[in-house]
Amino acid sequence: MIRKLSNACCLAASITVLGLATVPRPAAAQRLEQVEKPTEPLVLADRGSFFVDGRSVKQSPAELSSIFGRPLANDGHVTVDQMYVEYMVPAQRAGVPVVMLHGGTLTGKGFDTTPDGRMGWYEYFVRHGHPTYIADQISRGRSGVDIATYNDVRLGRKPVSALPNAFRESDEYNWKLFRMGPANGVTFPGSQFPAGAGAELSKQGVADFNPMLPSPNPNARAMADLARQTGGAILMGHSEAGGIPIDAALTDPSGVRGIIEVEPGACDADKRTHAQIATLAHIPTLMVFGDHLDAPTGTALDWTKVYADCNRLIGRINAVGGKASMLHPADLGIRGNTHLLMMDRNSLQIADLILAWIDRNVPSSATPQNPDQRASVARQPAQR
Amino acid sequence: MIRKLSNACCLAASITVLGLATVPRPAAAQRLEQVEKPTEPLVLADRGSFFVDGRSVKQSPAELSSIFGRPLANDGHVTVDQMYVEYMVPAQRAGVPVVMLHGGTLTGKGFDTTPDGRMGWYEYFVRHGHPTYIADQISRGRSGVDIATYNDVRLGRKPVSALPNAFRESDEYNWKLFRMGPANGVTFPGSQFPAGAGAELSKQGVADFNPMLPSPNPNARAMADLARQTGGAILMGHSEAGGIPIDAALTDPSGVRGIIEVEPGACDADKRTHAQIATLAHIPTLMVFGDHLDAPTGTALDWTKVYADCNRLIGRINAVGGKASMLHPADLGIRGNTHLLMMDRNSLQIADLILAWIDRNVPSSATPQNPDQRASVARQPAQR
Repeated sequence: MIRKLSNACCLAASITVLGLATVPRPAAAQRLEQVEKPTEPLVLADRGSFFVDGRSVKQSPAELSSIFGRPLANDGHVTVDQMYVEYMVPAQRAGVPVVMLHGGTLTGKGFDTTPDGRMGWYEYFVRHGHPTYIADQISRGRSGVDIATYNDVRLGRKPVSALPNAFRESDEYNWKLFRMGPANGVTFPGSQFPAGAGAELSKQGVADFNPMLPSPNPNARAMADLARQTGGAILMGHSEAGGIPIDAALTDPSGVRGIIEVEPGACDADKRTHAQIATLAHIPTLMVFGDHLDAPTGTALDWTKVYADCNRLIGRINAVGGKASMLHPADLGIRGNTHLLMMDRNSLQIADLILAWIDRNVPSSATPQNPDQRASVARQPAQR
Repeated sequence: MIRKLSNACCLAASITVLGLATVPRPAAAQRLEQVEKPTEPLVLADRGSFFVDGRSVKQSPAELSSIFGRPLANDGHVTVDQMYVEYMVPAQRAGVPVVMLHGGTLTGKGFDTTPDGRMGWYEYFVRHGHPTYIADQISRGRSGVDIATYNDVRLGRKPVSALPNAFRESDEYNWKLFRMGPANGVTFPGSQFPAGAGAELSKQGVADFNPMLPSPNPNARAMADLARQTGGAILMGHSEAGGIPIDAALTDPSGVRGIIEVEPGACDADKRTHAQIATLAHIPTLMVFGDHLDAPTGTALDWTKVYADCNRLIGRINAVGGKASMLHPADLGIRGNTHLLMMDRNSLQIADLILAWIDRNVPSSATPQNPDQRASVARQPAQR
C-alpha cells in the first residue's frame, strides 16, 4: 500500500524533477515530503542490534590504559574487529533482507533520518517489506576501533611514526568532492542536495580510523558473514564502502543474493581475474551514480573515470552471462543527484528505482528466508 | 496490555528470583524470556535519529589529515561535540519521554538488545508507552571524537605528551569491577548476569576518548538541551554517565522532569552547594544500585562507599523538600544484580520497578508533551 502510494507520488515527482532546474527548489521538496513521512505507523515484527565477527585479543596494561589514567595492574582481553549491526524486520514482510554499509567518515546514521529531517533509506526499505540491517564500519561508530598502538605511542613504547593515519573530511572538501556545487554552500542549479542542511550533514562526520584496520579489511568478511546469517541478503555499500559488497562476495558468496554499489570509489574492472568475474556473474549487481559526474572535485578523484570503470566491470560481468546494470538517474531525466543519493531531496525517488530493480532481479520468492537463523545472530543459543 | 502481562510475569519471576541462589540459572532465564520477547509487533508513531548541539570549528590540513594519506591543500571546518541520538515514539503513547545515556567504554547499544539476545530497556520502555531517546556520549560511537590533537602529534606538530588518555576496559577488569563474580567468567551464586554472554558483552566495548573532551563535559549541556527539545524528559545515566543527569539539571533544569542515576561512579553528596540541592529538590530523583556492593572490585573503587554517598545525597535533597529515593532491589529480596542492571537476566524486572517509580513520581499528565517541538529537533524548518 505504501509502495503503491509512493510510486504514484514519485512518478509525479519525477516529472516535476525534470523541470527542476527552472523551478524553485522548495516546491519539489514539499511534494516529495508527502511521500517521505507516511502517516501510517511503522509496524515491526522485530528490531534490535547485535555484532558480527570480532576477535578476542590480549593487550598489555599500557595498551588498554585505564579508566582513571593510572596504568592497570594486569593485561587482559578486549574484542577487536567486531561489526555493530542494527536491524528492523517489518511485520508485513515482502522482500529479501538488505544490508547497508556507509561511506568514509560517516556511520550507519547516514542511512537513517536525512540531514534535513526526512525519512532515510533504512526505514523506507523496511516500510517496503525488506528486513533491513544497518552496520557501522569496523573501526568506527559503535563497532569501535583498536587503540593499542595509540596508547603504545602515548606511553613511549612505540615511535610517533607508528601512529596510523586517521582523518576527517572538512565541509568544504566534501562539498566539492560530493558534487553539491562549485563552492561550499553553493549548489548547482537543480541540485538535489538540501542546500541548507550542510551544518546537519557536518554533524554526521566522525574520525575515520580505517587506516588502522588489518589487511584484508575485515569489513568484507563481516558483511559476507552477516549476509549468511540473515539467510541471504542484498549487500549495499556506499562510497568508501562501495566496493565492499563485491569484496564480501569474493570472500564468501554463499549468502550474497545481490550487490548494490552506490558511487564506489573504484570498481577495479581491469584488475579482476576471470575467476572473480565468474563468481560475480552469479549475483545480480547494480551500480548507482548521481549527476554532475564531470564537476571538478578539488581532489585527484575524477568521477567520470570511476563511472567508466564501473561500466567496464558491468560489461565484463555480463559478457560471461551475469546480470549487472547501471542506474544513472540522470539518463532517466532525473537530474541533480549528488554523491549522497540517500540524503538528496529526491532520496526516496532513487530508493524506488533501487526497490524496483530488487523486485525484478532478486524476487523474494527466489530467496528462501530463515527467520530462525537470522534471529540466532542476535541471541546466544547457549543462554536459552 | 503488555505492561499488565509483564507485571504478572515479573511478579512470578520475582518470586523465582528469591530462591535463585539454590536453583539452576537457565530455568529463571527461560521464564523471563516469556516476558522479554512479546509476540505483539512493535507499533511506532515515529522513529529516527538526529544530533544535539555541536560546534563548527576550523582545522588545519594536518589536523584533518586526508582521505588518501596526503595532506589536504586547505584548512576547513568540521563539527565537534555533537551528540548522536536515536529515538522511538510508540503509537500508543502513555508516558513521559525518557533519555538514556550509557557508561564508560560503551555506546547507546548498551540499552538495546542484551548480550544474550533479549529485549533491552530501549524497546521495553517504548513498549510501555514512553518516547525513548538513546544517545551516544560525545567523544564516542556515532557522536564522534575530535582528532585534531592526534593528527598534530602524528605529524610532529605537537609532542607525544599532548596525546590525551584513551582507554578500553579488559573483560577481566570489568568482570570484577561490575561485580559479576570473584574471577573472570565465574559468577557469584545467583548472579543475574547471563554468565555465558561475556564474549558478547566484550564486543560492546569501544575506545573511550572522554579524556579528550573539553571542560565542562559537553555531554551535560547536550542532555539538558535534548530534554528541553523533547518537551520535557526524564534523564537516565549509567556508570560513567551516571552523574550526567544531575550535571544536566544543574546546567539547565527547564527540561528535566526526572533524574534516574543507575550506579553512578559518584554522587558527590558532600560537595553539592545549597543552591544545587535546592535545584535538585524540584526534580524527582531515583538512584538504582545492584547487589554484592561489598565485593572486591580489583580497583580503588568501593561500591559501598558510592552507595553511601548517593544515600547521603538523597538525604540532603529530601531534607529541603525534594523527592529522591533509592531503588536497591536486594532490599526487596531481588538478589544477584550486577553493575549492568540493563543487561542482567532480570533486566526487565528492574525496568518494571523503574517504570513503576516513573508512574508514581513523573506521571504523564504532569508533563505536557509537545510532539511538534520534538519533531523539530530532527528536521530543519528552513528545508520545509
